[in-house]
Amino acid sequence: MRPFTLQEAASAAGARLSGDADLVLKSVAPLADAGPDDLSFVSGARYRAAARDSRAGALIVGDAADAGGKPALIASNPSVALARLLDYLEPARKAAPGVSSRAVVSPTARLGTEVAIGPGAVIGERAEIGDRAVIGVNAYVGPDAQIGRDTILFTGAVVEWGCRVGERCRIFPGAVIGSDGFGYVWDGERHLRIPQIGVAVLEDDVDVGANACVDRAALSETRVGRGTKIDNLVQVGHNARIGEHSILCGQAGLAGSVRVGRRVTIAGQVGIGDRMTVGDGATCTAQAGVMSNVEPGQVVSGMPAEPHREFLKREAAADRLPEALSRLAELERKFTAKFEAL
Amino acid sequence: MRPFTLQEAASAAGARLSGDADLVLKSVAPLADAGPDDLSFVSGARYRAAARDSRAGALIVGDAADAGGKPALIASNPSVALARLLDYLEPARKAAPGVSSRAVVSPTARLGTEVAIGPGAVIGERAEIGDRAVIGVNAYVGPDAQIGRDTILFTGAVVEWGCRVGERCRIFPGAVIGSDGFGYVWDGERHLRIPQIGVAVLEDDVDVGANACVDRAALSETRVGRGTKIDNLVQVGHNARIGEHSILCGQAGLAGSVRVGRRVTIAGQVGIGDRMTVGDGATCTAQAGVMSNVEPGQVVSGMPAEPHREFLKREAAADRLPEALSRLAELERKFTAKFEAL
Amino acid sequence: MRPFTLQEAASAAGARLSGDADLVLKSVAPLADAGPDDLSFVSGARYRAAARDSRAGALIVGDAADAGGKPALIASNPSVALARLLDYLEPARKAAPGVSSRAVVSPTARLGTEVAIGPGAVIGERAEIGDRAVIGVNAYVGPDAQIGRDTILFTGAVVEWGCRVGERCRIFPGAVIGSDGFGYVWDGERHLRIPQIGVAVLEDDVDVGANACVDRAALSETRVGRGTKIDNLVQVGHNARIGEHSILCGQAGLAGSVRVGRRVTIAGQVGIGDRMTVGDGATCTAQAGVMSNVEPGQVVSGMPAEPHREFLKREAAADRLPEALSRLAELERKFTAKFEAL
Repeated sequence: MRPFTLQEAASAAGARLSGDADLVLKSVAPLADAGPDDLSFVSGARYRAAARDSRAGALIVGDAADAGGKPALIASNPSVALARLLDYLEPARKAAPGVSSRAVVSPTARLGTEVAIGPGAVIGERAEIGDRAVIGVNAYVGPDAQIGRDTILFTGAVVEWGCRVGERCRIFPGAVIGSDGFGYVWDGERHLRIPQIGVAVLEDDVDVGANACVDRAALSETRVGRGTKIDNLVQVGHNARIGEHSILCGQAGLAGSVRVGRRVTIAGQVGIGDRMTVGDGATCTAQAGVMSNVEPGQVVSGMPAEPHREFLKREAAADRLPEALSRLAELERKFTAKFEAL
Repeated sequence: MRPFTLQEAASAAGARLSGDADLVLKSVAPLADAGPDDLSFVSGARYRAAARDSRAGALIVGDAADAGGKPALIASNPSVALARLLDYLEPARKAAPGVSSRAVVSPTARLGTEVAIGPGAVIGERAEIGDRAVIGVNAYVGPDAQIGRDTILFTGAVVEWGCRVGERCRIFPGAVIGSDGFGYVWDGERHLRIPQIGVAVLEDDVDVGANACVDRAALSETRVGRGTKIDNLVQVGHNARIGEHSILCGQAGLAGSVRVGRRVTIAGQVGIGDRMTVGDGATCTAQAGVMSNVEPGQVVSGMPAEPHREFLKREAAADRLPEALSRLAELERKFTAKFEAL
Repeated sequence: MRPFTLQEAASAAGARLSGDADLVLKSVAPLADAGPDDLSFVSGARYRAAARDSRAGALIVGDAADAGGKPALIASNPSVALARLLDYLEPARKAAPGVSSRAVVSPTARLGTEVAIGPGAVIGERAEIGDRAVIGVNAYVGPDAQIGRDTILFTGAVVEWGCRVGERCRIFPGAVIGSDGFGYVWDGERHLRIPQIGVAVLEDDVDVGANACVDRAALSETRVGRGTKIDNLVQVGHNARIGEHSILCGQAGLAGSVRVGRRVTIAGQVGIGDRMTVGDGATCTAQAGVMSNVEPGQVVSGMPAEPHREFLKREAAADRLPEALSRLAELERKFTAKFEAL
C-alpha cells in the first residue's frame, strides 16, 4: 500500500475530515495493532476506550467524541467508509488482459474485450466470457457456460457446462458451480443416477467462497439471487432458489429444492432440509437445523430449529431441570411423609 | 436436448404409453415450470392437484389417475422411469477419446483403449487407466494409482498414489481421494506425524461429490463399497470402511476407523465419531452426532444420537418443560400453604 | 515397502528388541489384518487379547506382557515408535528437484535450492520458494507469497498473494490459504465488500488438510501457530489467531477474529462463533457450538457449548424428564385428591 494523506482518505471514504488534512499515513490497521503511521477505525461506542488507548495516527469514527482528540474521518457508517477507503487503497491485483499461451480456449468460445485468461485455464466450446472478466490460473469454464462482465474466477474455480454466472461475481479458489445434483432413485438393486440436465445460475454481484459448491438442477435451474454472498465450504443443493442480497456463512448447507428469500442471513454450519422455505429477512443462527419452514423476518435457532425466543426459553428451562428434579423428589418425599402422617 | 415423441420417451423410460404416441415434446421440466412442449412427472399422490393444474404437455405418472386426462407415461416407479428417460435424452457430454497435448502422462503409465485425458491432467508413474475412462481437465492420478473402466474424473479431481478407483465411478470436481489420514501422536513436544502408508479404495459404481475427501488409511485401506454415493464436501476419515449401496449426504463427516454397513443412509451434516459402527440399513438423520454404535436398521437422531423414537420423546418432553416447571412451583406453593394450614 | 529385519525396525523405532533380531518382516499392518510377515502394534492393554489372537509375526508393544510371547519391539509409547518406524519405511515419494517445463514461474520469483515445481504449477511475481520445497501439480503460489523450506504444496493447493507459509508445512490437495475473508457491510442497498488487504500466515510445521480453507485477514493477519495441524474441510475465518500445537479436526469451522490458544483440541464439526476465545489446552468436543469464551484447560460440549460436566448433567436430566413429567402429574393428582379429601 502506498502512503496517503488524511484529506485523500476522507475523499475516498466519503467522510468528513477533522484534523490535519496533510497528515501522511502509511497503512490501515486494527486498533490493537495500529501505530502512529496507521489509520484505524472505531466501529461503535464500546470501542471508545480502546480508541483512546490506541497508538493509531488517525481514526475513522461515527462520532467525533470517539476519536479522543486524534485526527479523524467522521462518517455516519464507519464500516462503509472503511470499505470505500480500502477499495481505493487496495493494490491493483487484477490480472492484465490477455490469453495465456498455457490456456486452452475452444475456437468456438466467444471472448469479450480485455478478458484475462490465466495459464492452465480451459474454456469449453461455445462458452461466452464477458468483457474484462478474469479466468484465473487452472480455472475451468465448461461448454456453453456464460461468464458475465467483470467477473473473476479465481485459481481452480469451476463453472460446469451450460451454467451462467452474472456480472461482477467473484468465484473464489476451488469453488464448483454446476456439478451434478445429488439425485438418485433406488431401482430395487442399486441407486440409479437421475441425470442432472438443469443448470446453475448466479445473478450479478454474487460471491462464492473457496471450495464452496452450488449444484446444477435436475431439470430446470438452481439460482442464486443478485448480490447474495456465499462463504467458503458452503453447499447449495440442486434446484435451490436463493433470493437477492442474502448471506450464507461458512459451511452452511442447503439440501435440494430449498427456497431462501431476500436478505436472509444463514449463519455458519446451518443445515436446511429438503424443500424447506426460509422467508425474506429471516435469520437462521449458527448450527441451526431447519426442518420446517421459516417465516419472513423470523429468527430461528437450535436443532430442530425453532423461533429463537422459544429456543432461549427451552435452554433456560433445561438449565433449571437438574434442580427441578431434586425439588420434585423432595416434594414427593414430603407429600408421602405428610400423607402418611395424616 | 433434441425433441422427442411420447412413443420414444415411453420406450426409453420403460413405461406404458397412454395418449398420442406421436406427440412431440421438447424438454423435461418440473411441474411448476412445465409448458405444453414439456414432459413433466408426478412423484406421488400428493402432487395430483399440481399435476392437474400444470401446463405440461404430458406426464410420467405411477397411476393413470394422476395424469388428469393428459397424455402420460405410466410406470410403477415414475422416478426410475424419469431417470431412464433423462439418461436417454441427456446430451452426450463425454469427452472424445484422446490424450491432450497439454496433459502429462508418465511413460510408465498404462492407458486402456479409448481413454480421454484432458488438458492439464497429470498421470503418474505406473498408474493404470481403464478403457474408456475420462481423466478431466487438470485432474491428477498419482503414481501406482488405478482408475477403472468407464470411470470419470471431473475437473481437478485428485486420486493419490497407490489408490484404486473401480469401474463406472464418477469423481466430481475438486474431490480428493487418498490424501493423508489425519494421524498424529504427541511425542511430548509436538504432534508427530504418523505416515499414512495405506490406500483408499473405491469399489465399482461409487460417486464422490465435488470437493469431498476420502482419506487414505494409516496402514491398510479406507474402503467405499460398490454402488455407494457420496455427496459434496463429505469427509471420510482414514481406515473407514463403508458398505455397498450406502448414501452419504452433503457435508457429512466420518472420523477415523468408522464402520458403515450396506444400504445405510447418512443425512446431511451428520458426524460419526472415531471407531463407531453403523449397521446395515441404518439411518442417521440430519446433523446427528453419532457417539455410540448404531444397530442395523436403526434410525438415530440428535447429538448425541439416540434412537429416533427416543429423540422425539425427549423433544416432546422438552417442549413441555417450561410449563412443567411452573406447575412444580405451583404445587410446592400449594403444598406449603396446605402443610402450614394443617 | 521393502522387507526389513526386526533389528532394523527396533533401531528406526527407537525401541527395545525382544526376540529374533534377524526376523524378516514385509510390512506393517493393523492387528486384525496382520499375517506372519507383518509387524503390528498394540496401543494399550485393552488390545492385549487381540494381540494374542493376532497372526502378526511381531508386535510393537508398551509392555512385554502385551506381546503374548511373540517377537516384539518394546517402547514406552508404541504409537511414537510406530510413527518413527513408518517414517523410516515409507517409500520416498518426494518429487525430484527441478522445475517442470509445464510450470509457469515468474522471472521475478526467487527459488531456493533443490526446489521441485510440478506441471501446471504457477508461481507469481516476487514469490519466494524455500530450499527443497515442493510445489505440486497444478498448485498455485500468488505474487509476493512465501513458501518455507521443506514445505510441500500438494496437487492444486493454493497460497494467495502475500501469504506466508513456514518451514516443513504440508498443504494438502485443494487447500486454499489466503482467499478473501468474508467481510461485507450493508450500505443500505447491498452488501458492500470490505477489501481484505491482510494476509494469512502459517508458522513452521503446520499441516492443512485437503480442501480446507484459511482466509486472509481484513487488515493485519490470520495466523496459525507452529506445529498446529488442521484436518480436511476445516474453515478458518479471517483475522483468526491459532496458537502452537493445536489440533483442528475435520469440518470444524472458526468464524472471524476467533482466538484459539496453544495445545487446544477442536474436534470434528465444531463451530466457534465470531470473536470467541478458546484458552490454552482447552478441548471442544465434536459438533460443539462455541458461543462464549472457553477457559484454559476447559472441556466444552453441546450447542451452545457448556462445560462438559454440565453438558453430561443436563443430558442425564433430560433423559429423566419424560418420567419426571409423569411423576409430577401423579403428584398433582394425589395432592388434589388429598386436598379435596381434607
